[in-house]
Amino acid sequence: MTAPSDRPNPPLVVLGLDPGSRVTGYGLVRDDGGRLVFVDAGVISLGAADMAARLGRIHTELSALIVRHCPVEAALENVFVSRNTMSAIKLGQARGAAMAACAVAGLPVASYEPTVVKKAVVGVGRADKDQVAFMIARVLGVSGRLPADASDALAVAVCHLNERRMRRLTGCVK
Amino acid sequence: MTAPSDRPNPPLVVLGLDPGSRVTGYGLVRDDGGRLVFVDAGVISLGAADMAARLGRIHTELSALIVRHCPVEAALENVFVSRNTMSAIKLGQARGAAMAACAVAGLPVASYEPTVVKKAVVGVGRADKDQVAFMIARVLGVSGRLPADASDALAVAVCHLNERRMRRLTGCVK
Repeated sequence: MTAPSDRPNPPLVVLGLDPGSRVTGYGLVRDDGGRLVFVDAGVISLGAADMAARLGRIHTELSALIVRHCPVEAALENVFVSRNTMSAIKLGQARGAAMAACAVAGLPVASYEPTVVKKAVVGVGRADKDQVAFMIARVLGVSGRLPADASDALAVAVCHLNERRMRRLTGCVK
Repeated sequence: MTAPSDRPNPPLVVLGLDPGSRVTGYGLVRDDGGRLVFVDAGVISLGAADMAARLGRIHTELSALIVRHCPVEAALENVFVSRNTMSAIKLGQARGAAMAACAVAGLPVASYEPTVVKKAVVGVGRADKDQVAFMIARVLGVSGRLPADASDALAVAVCHLNERRMRRLTGCVK
């Protein structure tokens, strides 16, 4: 019989998000005792429906993904702040629908600066999108080309798992 | 026996929203055959919790209000676009959580320019907040002082019901 303290931790699944009002990317990665394993990734294409309907779809589809894969935490990038405030409102709306879906399901949501995500995946904070996509496919053993928003979502999930591991090693998280 | 076409329409309840990441106002107004009746109004105070938890609360509390009062449509103001894009992202996030809650519950969400809302309630597009609050309390027969965000939410509900009535009279909506 295994004493409770000797039991291995259950696999930790993290949901990475790249929300947008036209396309929202998602990527799920599992930490199997230090080995990162691809679970699922894709995009929710929101088409030309009215904005509220698009935001409703982000919420509904992410909620379904959470039920299917049981992630315990979620993560997304802090946004690049442009000068166009109308774009910022639209991007904020997509982020709000996605973050609310996670919070309603009980998932804490972490956020990271884009440079931190790139550094975690590629090793340098100024990597371009192709380099991130290449390294994500390699690290997670994904064959075939992933949509860019799915790659970006996987990247933030990988970044979060790395950061989490560092914090565990330094005693900041179990 | 009443023929189906002679049946009076069921009372039409509209949910007005004034979303914000610190305080989200709501107001429900019923149209009883042309007479506007106050149903409920208030604010969801979101305190200092982390942003995802606040957005989750916006979603959960609005969903509960929708179940309780059965509004058939929702409305909110188009936002004032400032130069501060970080504020725009935060405001967008609150709007996204609120709009997604409406869309998931099957409510269409209309939006109006602030000047249109003020004109519908006060008669002039440049009215200040106190004038809007005064007229809303008067039109809906609300005694006591409402929080400003609740008044603003009631104002956009009244505006939507007025616009809806105009469109019905001109044959654009049933």
